Amino acid sequence: MKVTVLGSNGYGGMLLLRILAGHPDVKTVIAGARSQAGVPVDQADPGLPHRYVASGKILPTVLALEDAIEESSDVVFSALPHGASAEVCAPLLGRVPVIDLSADFRFIDQDRFRGAYGSDWPAPKHQGSAVYGLVEWYRHALPGATVIANPGCYPTASLMPLLPLVDAGITINGPIVINALSGVTGAGRSPKVNTLYGERTENAVAYSPGMQHRHHAEIVERLEMGGSLGHPLFFNPHLVPLKQGMAITMVVPTAESTRAVEALKDRYNPEPFVELTGTRPPETREIRGTNSIRIGWREEENALVLMSVMDNLWKGASGQAVQNMNVLFGLDETAGLLHPGEL
Amino acid sequence: MKVTVLGSNGYGGMLLLRILAGHPDVKTVIAGARSQAGVPVDQADPGLPHRYVASGKILPTVLALEDAIEESSDVVFSALPHGASAEVCAPLLGRVPVIDLSADFRFIDQDRFRGAYGSDWPAPKHQGSAVYGLVEWYRHALPGATVIANPGCYPTASLMPLLPLVDAGITINGPIVINALSGVTGAGRSPKVNTLYGERTENAVAYSPGMQHRHHAEIVERLEMGGSLGHPLFFNPHLVPLKQGMAITMVVPTAESTRAVEALKDRYNPEPFVELTGTRPPETREIRGTNSIRIGWREEENALVLMSVMDNLWKGASGQAVQNMNVLFGLDETAGLLHPGEL
Amino acid sequence: MKVTVLGSNGYGGMLLLRILAGHPDVKTVIAGARSQAGVPVDQADPGLPHRYVASGKILPTVLALEDAIEESSDVVFSALPHGASAEVCAPLLGRVPVIDLSADFRFIDQDRFRGAYGSDWPAPKHQGSAVYGLVEWYRHALPGATVIANPGCYPTASLMPLLPLVDAGITINGPIVINALSGVTGAGRSPKVNTLYGERTENAVAYSPGMQHRHHAEIVERLEMGGSLGHPLFFNPHLVPLKQGMAITMVVPTAESTRAVEALKDRYNPEPFVELTGTRPPETREIRGTNSIRIGWREEENALVLMSVMDNLWKGASGQAVQNMNVLFGLDETAGLLHPGEL
Amino acid sequence: MKVTVLGSNGYGGMLLLRILAGHPDVKTVIAGARSQAGVPVDQADPGLPHRYVASGKILPTVLALEDAIEESSDVVFSALPHGASAEVCAPLLGRVPVIDLSADFRFIDQDRFRGAYGSDWPAPKHQGSAVYGLVEWYRHALPGATVIANPGCYPTASLMPLLPLVDAGITINGPIVINALSGVTGAGRSPKVNTLYGERTENAVAYSPGMQHRHHAEIVERLEMGGSLGHPLFFNPHLVPLKQGMAITMVVPTAESTRAVEALKDRYNPEPFVELTGTRPPETREIRGTNSIRIGWREEENALVLMSVMDNLWKGASGQAVQNMNVLFGLDETAGLLHPGEL
Repeated sequence: MKVTVLGSNGYGGMLLLRILAGHPDVKTVIAGARSQAGVPVDQADPGLPHRYVASGKILPTVLALEDAIEESSDVVFSALPHGASAEVCAPLLGRVPVIDLSADFRFIDQDRFRGAYGSDWPAPKHQGSAVYGLVEWYRHALPGATVIANPGCYPTASLMPLLPLVDAGITINGPIVINALSGVTGAGRSPKVNTLYGERTENAVAYSPGMQHRHHAEIVERLEMGGSLGHPLFFNPHLVPLKQGMAITMVVPTAESTRAVEALKDRYNPEPFVELTGTRPPETREIRGTNSIRIGWREEENALVLMSVMDNLWKGASGQAVQNMNVLFGLDETAGLLHPGEL
Repeated sequence: MKVTVLGSNGYGGMLLLRILAGHPDVKTVIAGARSQAGVPVDQADPGLPHRYVASGKILPTVLALEDAIEESSDVVFSALPHGASAEVCAPLLGRVPVIDLSADFRFIDQDRFRGAYGSDWPAPKHQGSAVYGLVEWYRHALPGATVIANPGCYPTASLMPLLPLVDAGITINGPIVINALSGVTGAGRSPKVNTLYGERTENAVAYSPGMQHRHHAEIVERLEMGGSLGHPLFFNPHLVPLKQGMAITMVVPTAESTRAVEALKDRYNPEPFVELTGTRPPETREIRGTNSIRIGWREEENALVLMSVMDNLWKGASGQAVQNMNVLFGLDETAGLLHPGEL
Repeated sequence: MKVTVLGSNGYGGMLLLRILAGHPDVKTVIAGARSQAGVPVDQADPGLPHRYVASGKILPTVLALEDAIEESSDVVFSALPHGASAEVCAPLLGRVPVIDLSADFRFIDQDRFRGAYGSDWPAPKHQGSAVYGLVEWYRHALPGATVIANPGCYPTASLMPLLPLVDAGITINGPIVINALSGVTGAGRSPKVNTLYGERTENAVAYSPGMQHRHHAEIVERLEMGGSLGHPLFFNPHLVPLKQGMAITMVVPTAESTRAVEALKDRYNPEPFVELTGTRPPETREIRGTNSIRIGWREEENALVLMSVMDNLWKGASGQAVQNMNVLFGLDETAGLLHPGEL
Repeated sequence: MKVTVLGSNGYGGMLLLRILAGHPDVKTVIAGARSQAGVPVDQADPGLPHRYVASGKILPTVLALEDAIEESSDVVFSALPHGASAEVCAPLLGRVPVIDLSADFRFIDQDRFRGAYGSDWPAPKHQGSAVYGLVEWYRHALPGATVIANPGCYPTASLMPLLPLVDAGITINGPIVINALSGVTGAGRSPKVNTLYGERTENAVAYSPGMQHRHHAEIVERLEMGGSLGHPLFFNPHLVPLKQGMAITMVVPTAESTRAVEALKDRYNPEPFVELTGTRPPETREIRGTNSIRIGWREEENALVLMSVMDNLWKGASGQAVQNMNVLFGLDETAGLLHPGEL
C-alpha cells in the first residue's frame, strides 16, 4: 500500500508517519505539509528513526499539499486543521478513501456543527457518505466509506464508556458530569504562549467548562443518535502536565449500575483495543504510546462512576486513524499498532 | 513568640519551619520529629535557607517528640499523622494552644469520623473545644481555642466555593459533583512506590472516586452543619503531575447561579487570601507558594460550575495553619504569608 | 521610590514587577511593554497577586515603552531584548540610573561583543560608564553607576565559583570544562516550537556546545580581566525539564584544590546570597524562588570539581537586578529578596 | 523459545517482560521475583498490556526466585541487584545462558571491582567466561557465552562515542571530562525519599562527581583494554527530571577531531541501533522507548565535543539485553526491538 499524510508537521501527522512507516502492509509513506514543502522529512522531524528514511519507506522530502494530493495513494490521511482539511481533501473525495482527523465530517446535524465551529459544513455534498470512525461502534460501516471522520480525542474517551449504557437502555436519572484531563499535545504544535513549557509544567487548569467546548457538541450528538438522554451533560476539560494522555472521570446518575457494568463487559470483551480494569482506576501511563483505551468503574448508590484513559495521540487521533485504515482494507485490525507501551 | 513544630520531617512540617522562621512575630522555632531526633535541621532539610539557622531563629537540632513537647512554647503545631497527633498532643491540650494539621479534631460527629478513619475519636474529651480552622468561616471562634483543627486540603478547596452558597440559602436541585486534582505532595513524604518520580511524572489517575475518600466525609459534615443538602455529593480526586497544587471543578445544579455568584463576591470581597477570577478559570500556578485560594465560575442553565485552585501545602496545610496562628494571637492575619508567588 | 520596568511581558519583567511590588522601599511600580500597551497589568499577568494592583502599588495599566520612559522614576529596569534595550534606554542614560538585563552593556571588549552578538556596541558612548552588576564582585563600583549591566544567567552561575580562584591566583593546569543545565524559561517567553511543553517535558539536550554560546564570551571576558587563563574554556549548556533553575558542574585542573576551597570560603563567608554546601552537591530546588546561589565542590587529585545552582530568573536575572538596585541606593541589600524558598 | 526474567519487579525486569512478550521468537516468558512470588503478573505490573497475559505468552503468576530458576528455559535474564544476581544465578551458569543486568560479571580486574563495589567478585570461577555485552564491540564473542554481562547505562552511553577513537588510535592530549544526565528510573524502583516525585520534579543535581561513581571504574576499564589513556577521566553524573533517558556530553582534548569523526562514521555506519546526528546535538526524546543510541559532535580547536543520548532502560538495560539474546541465538539482531519511538 501507498499512503499519504497531509499535515505531517503537527503531532498527529508526525505520529501517523511513524506508525505507517512501521506498518507491515504499507510500502510507501508520503508526507505533505503546507509549511514544510521541500524540507527533508528527517529535518522536519529530527526524532524520526533513521531506518524509516534509510529504507526508503518514507519519501525523503516533504511535499507541498498540492503535490501530495496528486500522488496516487491507496488512502489519504488528513491531519490538517478543520476547515482547511475538507477544502484540501475535496478533490480527492470519491477517488481515494480519506481518513480525516479534523472535525469537518464528524457532524450529522449541521446546526450543531455551526454552533460548535461557527461556520457551515465545509463540504456538504460529501457529508452524507462520511462514516464516524469510532471503530468499535461503526466498524460495519467503514468498508466502502468515501471519508472516515476520525473522532475527537475527548469524544472517543467519553463515548467509549457511555455508549454501552445507551445501547443497553440503561435509565439515566440526572445530569451526566464528565471531567476530563488532557495532555498538552491536544492543543497542537503551533507555538503559543499558553502551551510553552514554562506555562504548563506543574500547572493545572480547567478551560471551557460546562457546555462550551466543541467536543461537548460532538459527544452529545453521538449519545443522542437513538434519542434524547433526557438530562443535560456537563463537560469540564482540563489541561494538566502531560505530553500525551487523557483521563476521563464521569458520574452517571442511575439505579442500574450493575446492569451497566455488565453491558460494558459484554460489549468490550472481544475488542482488541479496549481493556477493562474493573474497580481499579486506570492510569494514563498504562496506555501511553499504545492504541488501547482502559475503562474502570465504581458503583455508588444511584450512580455509576466511569473512568477511562487513553493516549490522545494514539487512540484519540493517529492510532485510531490507522485502526480505521486496517478495517477499511480488511487488514488485521491491530496491524502496526501493537507496541510494548510505557512502564 | 516561641513556636514548636511536631513532625518537622514531612512536607507540611518542613514548610511550617520556613514560614515561621520568616515570620516577623516569631523569635524561636523548635523542630521535633520522631525519626530525626538529634539530626541538625539543615541536614534534615538541606534546602533550608542558611540564614534561618545562622541567625539562631530555628534551633539547630531536631528534638525528639517527647523533648519538643517539654519546651515552653507559645503555640504548638502538629504535623503528625492522624492518631499519633492527638496522642502526642494530649498532654499539651489546655496548657498551650495546639494547631493540629491532622484529622484528629476535625469531626463533630464521631460516627462520621469512625466511618472515615476506622477508629474512635482519639481524644474525646477535647473534641468539644476544638475549632475547625477554616479561617474565613470560623475566624470568630479561633481566639481562645484549645485546639485548632486545621482543615484537610480537599475540604478547604471544596468548602470555600460552596459555603457561600449554603450560607445564602441557594437551592440545590441535584447531586453536586466535585472533581479534584491534587499535587503528589498531598500523599506525604514517606517513600512509597506509588509516589516515585518514575510512577507519577506524565501520569494522571483517579483514586477513591464517588463517596470513598475520607475527605468526602469532612466536606459533607461542614456543608450540612445547617441541615441536609437534600442531594448526594460525589467527590472524585485525582493524582496529577504536580508537586504542589490543587484544582477543583464542581457542578452544582441550581437555578440560582446568578445569586450564588453574588453571594461569593459579597462573602469574599474583604478576604485577604481569597481572590476571585470571575469567569476566567484560575490556574494552579497562580497560587503556588502562596496562601491564596482563587475561585472562578461558569454559569450554565440550571447549573453553576465552580472552580478553585490553591497550594495544597500552603492554604491547604501549613499556610492556613499560620493564618490560624495569626488570628489566634491577634496578629496581622497576613503576617509571614505574603510572597511574590510563582510565574 | 518609583520604579519602571520595561519589557514587563517576559519572564524577567514579570518577576521584576512582583519583587518590586513587594519591596518595602518601593512605592510605585510602572510596567511598560511594546506589545501590551493599554492592557491591564492583571490581564497581562493573570497570576499577579491581586493585592499588588488593589493596593495601587503597581499602576493598573501597562504603558507603551515611549510613555513608560517619560515617567519620572528613580530607577529604570530594562528587560528588553539586546539591541532594543540600549536603543530604548539611550535617552535615559545619565538622567536616571538604568539596570539593564540585556547583554548590551556587559562587554568591555567590543570585538568580543561583535563576535558574540554580530553587531557593534549599540550605545558606545555609555559603554565606559557601565558597571557589570555581579554584585559580590562589583559592589564597590555600583553607587553612582549610569547603567548597570546585569550579568547573564550562565555567566553568574559560572563566574561565582571561578572568580575566587582567579582572585587567589590559583594555578590552572589545563582546560576548564563547564557543564551547564538551564531551565526552559532561560529561552524566553516568545512562543517557539522548541520551547513548547510537548517538546521539552521529559527531554534533555545539549546546545551550542564548546565555544559557540554567547555566554562563553561573557564568562571568558570576566575571568581574564586580570590576565589570560592560559588554557581554553569549554562551555556546554543543556536544556532540561526545569521551568526555573540552573546547575553548573565544572572541572578545573589544578594541584591547588585545597587552597581554592579556602579561597571560596573566605570570599563568600559574609555574603548574604551565597551559601556553600561543602562536598554535598547542591540541588536546584534548594534555591528555586530565591536570590541565593549555592556552591559545592569535590576535590580530586589534580582537579577541583565545582558545582553551583541558582534560579535563572532570580539570581540569574530579576533578583540580582533588585540586589543591584538595593546596593545602588544604599538600601539593605536583601530588601524584598528574602522568601521561604522551595521544599 | 522459553525465557525467564529474574527480578521482574524492578523497571529493568518489567521492561524485559514486555519486550520479550512481544518478541516474535519467544513463546513463553516466566517472571520471577523475590518479593512478589504468587502475585498475578498483571497485578505486579498493572500497566502490562492485557494481551500478553490473555494470550498465555507470559505465565500468569510471578514465581519465587528458587522456582523460577528451576524452569527449563533457553535463556535467563537476571535483573537482580549486584551481589544477589551472581548468587542466585550461580547454579545456572554453564547449564543455560545467563544475561545479567547487574555489575557482577562486568569487570576483568578484580581490584577495580573491589574498589567500586566494596567486595570480591561474587562468582570468581565464572568470571573468565563472561562476555561484556556491549553488542557493537563484543558481538563476535557473544555466541557460546556462559554469561553475558550487560553493560551499565552510563558506560554504554559513554563508551559508544569513545571506543571508536581509542580503536582508531586517536591521540588524546588531556583529561576527558564526561558530563552525564540520567533519568530517575536509573536509581531503581525501591521507594526512597530521594526519588519521590516531590523531590525530583523540576529539580536537577550532580552526584558522585569526579572519580567516585562506580560506573567511572567500568568506563575506564573498557577504555584501557588496549593500554592506558595517559590522562585522567572525570565523570560527573546528574539526576534530572526525566523518567527514562540519558544524555552525555564530553570534551576530548585532541588535535585529531576530524579523523575521530571519520572513525565514528566508519565504525557505526552499518550498526542498526546507532544513529549519528552530525553536528546537531541529539535530544533524549528522540530515542525514548527505543533501543537506539544517537551520537553527535562539535569540533573545536584542539578538542572534540561528543554527545550521546539513549534510553537508560532500553539501550542502557533491557533493550540491550534482548539485543544480546538476539545475537547469542543467531536471530535477527533487531527482533522485538523496533518501535515507533517518541514524538
